[in-house]
Amino acid sequence: MRAEFDRLRVVLVSTRNPLNLGAAARAMSNFGFLHLRVVNPYEAAFREARSAVGASAVLSNSEEFKNVAEAVADCTLVVGTTAVGRRELQQPLLTLEMGGRMIRRRLGSSRVALLFGSEKVGLSNHDLSHCHWLLRIPTRVEHRSMNLGQAVAVCLYELARGSPTAPPVEKLQPASAGEVERITAVLLEALRSSGYLKPRSAALTEEKLRRLVRRLRLSSGDAEVCLGMLRQILWKLHSGESHTT
Amino acid sequence: MRAEFDRLRVVLVSTRNPLNLGAAARAMSNFGFLHLRVVNPYEAAFREARSAVGASAVLSNSEEFKNVAEAVADCTLVVGTTAVGRRELQQPLLTLEMGGRMIRRRLGSSRVALLFGSEKVGLSNHDLSHCHWLLRIPTRVEHRSMNLGQAVAVCLYELARGSPTAPPVEKLQPASAGEVERITAVLLEALRSSGYLKPRSAALTEEKLRRLVRRLRLSSGDAEVCLGMLRQILWKLHSGESHTT
Repeated sequence: MRAEFDRLRVVLVSTRNPLNLGAAARAMSNFGFLHLRVVNPYEAAFREARSAVGASAVLSNSEEFKNVAEAVADCTLVVGTTAVGRRELQQPLLTLEMGGRMIRRRLGSSRVALLFGSEKVGLSNHDLSHCHWLLRIPTRVEHRSMNLGQAVAVCLYELARGSPTAPPVEKLQPASAGEVERITAVLLEALRSSGYLKPRSAALTEEKLRRLVRRLRLSSGDAEVCLGMLRQILWKLHSGESHTT
Repeated sequence: MRAEFDRLRVVLVSTRNPLNLGAAARAMSNFGFLHLRVVNPYEAAFREARSAVGASAVLSNSEEFKNVAEAVADCTLVVGTTAVGRRELQQPLLTLEMGGRMIRRRLGSSRVALLFGSEKVGLSNHDLSHCHWLLRIPTRVEHRSMNLGQAVAVCLYELARGSPTAPPVEKLQPASAGEVERITAVLLEALRSSGYLKPRSAALTEEKLRRLVRRLRLSSGDAEVCLGMLRQILWKLHSGESHTT
């Protein structure tokens, strides 16, 4: 695990639904943030989620705190998440993308707490007062409030994004002009044999088809397969002719 | 709603859990993508999710399809999501960030289908063969597989992120998935008729050819020409058969 990821504390405050605890823990594990802190959970839900079959290591290693102050005490940056709109905000509000950059930067040197409130009411004003600033996922005005597990997933994706994992590069060897021309020739013969090419307009059609085949940007492997198919079709067309004539 | 968002079709294939259907629909509503298509859902789950108290407009307006081909027929770009690793992939694999850019660009001019497979096994090889390329959320190797509702949320966040981009111009109108599938069908029949497809390996070859045809990135005009050529060839093959048998 990367050292920066190891410095994030995901803090779930007053979560009610055990499924959401499980979902949050799963997203954390997916993106490599393994430290979960739980504040004042609905006790039955927490026990149930923790003991669920297949409960993740994240959940079973989670720490429980009595209040937000204790849960964030060892962090140098505390960020709350909000759907906004329900109360006057008295703190700076950043988009996830911009805030994510600032969190990543801080994780380079010290611990950051990222707070998520309860399903019904989000973070209380008291909870928010522990935060340096707030983060908003850019949901649309008509439907702002996200499911808790999905909100955690989206935030952690944004933090994990832009990591130095090399994107798998697909480099298919392109077909050579010779391969492409062989395909063109067999295709033209098949079209002649099937009556698609009319003698009068053949030259023009040939040019059009030659251009079309080149627009396909065939890879070398695909060119070989196409040639094989066309040859088989042509063979069959010719064998049909020999029977009928 | 932005016109580009209106062109995305989220396609859930063989979803089992009604909670996941509801969660996917909620994330769609959060980020402003309102068109849900459902292929071969577990019927009881679909009914339950649809009739749940507070079921979103997204869910109640969703369309049901018998198979992937029909669900993506009016889209010009079909993208599958995968956790990878379980099978050899035979298509280009892009990170969510890079693939998201390509999807956004295409949404500027035509419809895009984004496919999510079932909770247990993801998309089948047959489902994948309908896709132009695949998308991977950058989860860590130790825990790749995401919860379905969370995966939908993360993908749609990535698509919604990034400001209102000027609709870039696509020079040639790309062929729709329906046009491409018609070509595939006629090609397969021609190959059967000419003896290229062997009964024993037919299914595997079919999937390979479906992928190959999609790699061609046909324009709508070229697709029409190809279909005309293949139909003529097929007609000739069949007329040959009727004489020889």
